[in-house]
Amino acid sequence: MATVEELKLRVRELENELIKCKQRQCAAEDAHNRPRIDKMIGLLNNYLGFSVVGVGGVGSVTAEMLTRCGIGKLLLFDYDKVELANMNRLFFQPHQAGLSKVEAAEHTLRNINPDVAFETHNYNITTLDNFTHFMDRISHGGLEEGKPVDLVLSCVDNFEARMAINTACNELGQIWMESGVSENAVSGHIQLIIPGETACFACAPPLVVAANIDEKTLKREGVCAASLPTTMGVVAGLLVQNVLKYLLKFGTVSYYLGYNAMQDFFPTMAMKANPQCNDRHCRRQQEEFKIKEAERPKVEAVQQEEEEIIHEDNEWGIELVSEVTDAELQAASGAVPDLPEGITVAYTIPEKVSGDTVEETEVSLEDLMAQMRKL
Amino acid sequence: MATVEELKLRVRELENELIKCKQRQCAAEDAHNRPRIDKMIGLLNNYLGFSVVGVGGVGSVTAEMLTRCGIGKLLLFDYDKVELANMNRLFFQPHQAGLSKVEAAEHTLRNINPDVAFETHNYNITTLDNFTHFMDRISHGGLEEGKPVDLVLSCVDNFEARMAINTACNELGQIWMESGVSENAVSGHIQLIIPGETACFACAPPLVVAANIDEKTLKREGVCAASLPTTMGVVAGLLVQNVLKYLLKFGTVSYYLGYNAMQDFFPTMAMKANPQCNDRHCRRQQEEFKIKEAERPKVEAVQQEEEEIIHEDNEWGIELVSEVTDAELQAASGAVPDLPEGITVAYTIPEKVSGDTVEETEVSLEDLMAQMRKL
Repeated sequence: MATVEELKLRVRELENELIKCKQRQCAAEDAHNRPRIDKMIGLLNNYLGFSVVGVGGVGSVTAEMLTRCGIGKLLLFDYDKVELANMNRLFFQPHQAGLSKVEAAEHTLRNINPDVAFETHNYNITTLDNFTHFMDRISHGGLEEGKPVDLVLSCVDNFEARMAINTACNELGQIWMESGVSENAVSGHIQLIIPGETACFACAPPLVVAANIDEKTLKREGVCAASLPTTMGVVAGLLVQNVLKYLLKFGTVSYYLGYNAMQDFFPTMAMKANPQCNDRHCRRQQEEFKIKEAERPKVEAVQQEEEEIIHEDNEWGIELVSEVTDAELQAASGAVPDLPEGITVAYTIPEKVSGDTVEETEVSLEDLMAQMRKL
Repeated sequence: MATVEELKLRVRELENELIKCKQRQCAAEDAHNRPRIDKMIGLLNNYLGFSVVGVGGVGSVTAEMLTRCGIGKLLLFDYDKVELANMNRLFFQPHQAGLSKVEAAEHTLRNINPDVAFETHNYNITTLDNFTHFMDRISHGGLEEGKPVDLVLSCVDNFEARMAINTACNELGQIWMESGVSENAVSGHIQLIIPGETACFACAPPLVVAANIDEKTLKREGVCAASLPTTMGVVAGLLVQNVLKYLLKFGTVSYYLGYNAMQDFFPTMAMKANPQCNDRHCRRQQEEFKIKEAERPKVEAVQQEEEEIIHEDNEWGIELVSEVTDAELQAASGAVPDLPEGITVAYTIPEKVSGDTVEETEVSLEDLMAQMRKL
């Protein structure tokens, strides 16, 4: 039977222990608190809203670069989970395994720059319902709710998702940039697509940089050779660099820039939109672009003769790369373009697609994709 | 006056509160625990030891890529602290502000891949004592203690540190790779230096990729334009890619690869060592290389005529880039080399340096640096 004195002693002991425990709890929780940065200084001044589709090896680094440059809002789309097998790429950490990629990315990026607004969508954009929602968010989920995003960046790893983004951006007239890394991980590319002006993904087959090597030289026991943090880091860097040049109007924005890691070869080129494109929204954008061009004052004709000028002050900060002549651009408007050395098309499109064409039947996105897959 | 019952009640209350507090403490501490990965699969199979000198914008990403590729051991050298101003580069996080860069990097990298052994040195390698220690560690701190590291990667941002690494590697015959980003952050380069074979930093002035732009186009209020996560990410990616190609013997290893972000221009070239180099250890390495070359069977003469062949199976996996002819290489052996379009030297060296030359007086590293600074 405890005496009053014994009980009083026990109360004092417990009170002391509780104080110590609360101190340890606070210390442990503090270790998780990030010092809040009142206003992160960034090149982009937090006034832009971007959508990054695909938050894998390229997309996660792309999102991190934009976050560190002070983007205003990031919409992240992905439906994958972080796996330990992803650790041979940059960004994700082992303790995030099992989390959705968009959730894990948001957590890390928010800690880096708490001034960025994040909106994450953990779904596959290619299913019909999700595609409708995706269209709605890129056209209304910009920095100011109700306005479109400023740029869509495609960092996906499959054809269906690229075609979904292409379809959405053609319909919305949304400028976007594409990126890709080859399956053997030793080549990649970035591409700027301005609906109606440059070739969309339905205008011509996607371009790839020919790597021209025996993949066996890269394979190691138990290693997925298709993930080199190097190639993915370079492609993400080139992509966001092109974004910065485009937005901040410096240097020459690349329409297409390839990266062949085997030979350190970086082909550039440009391709005009195809007037016979299967996507009716692409053709509509081309008509609108033609009208806009016709209304523009004709001062550029003189400048075109001075080949080396960089148009730092023009609307886009863009000039055609010198590798591509007008004749080549003309040729590029066909289904199988004349391409610079080292670039090939991922596949070729038959001259006449059997069955109805898109504009005549208004087929669904899924039908269109099924059709493209058959090619 | 408290009754026994009141005291017993208080004891129970306190005991319950303590249990809850301990649960919260554990949860908070658990959030910091990382799941241990028994064996991370990596391209490099944990059998190499590297030294990364400079753990800033390029070096930190370089170290992360190597860690994720499964390097065996990393020696990190830097004497800077993490600052919030570094947050516009990749890798470091705001909560690490105030920590030494090597300490913060080790903590992050160990969480990513616990199989890598880290050795960090928080000092400036250019002071005499530290330089001696640096020499000792790169020559004895390899994966197997007592053996040299397999490669030294220079990711420093100043001339003195580059010359210190150059001096050390020439004396030790240590192969190394250099990297750099220009002050305006829109160009960079990587370079492979094989003592006695390719030009060292004393053979010719460092090469830079001419950016040829008005820096004002990049400046934003309150922003240090000299830090673009994009340029640094691309340079780190190209550097580690060159390392992988060199070690895993695939593709063409670049002797020099420049990156001009303004025009997306990537010049490559090669430069032979200068027989008149001021560094006596470089000249000694050249003599040793000549003897080694003379002893090699002469089968390459035939191969040289087939321009496009990639020597995937030769000792280094290296071939000279096609942009550089033998005549250019010859010319490049002088103090001011004939350089491909777009590459310039950082400065030129006067024909005759006043005062004694290095080999005659055996001046100290500091004297040498003071001399170089005057140029």
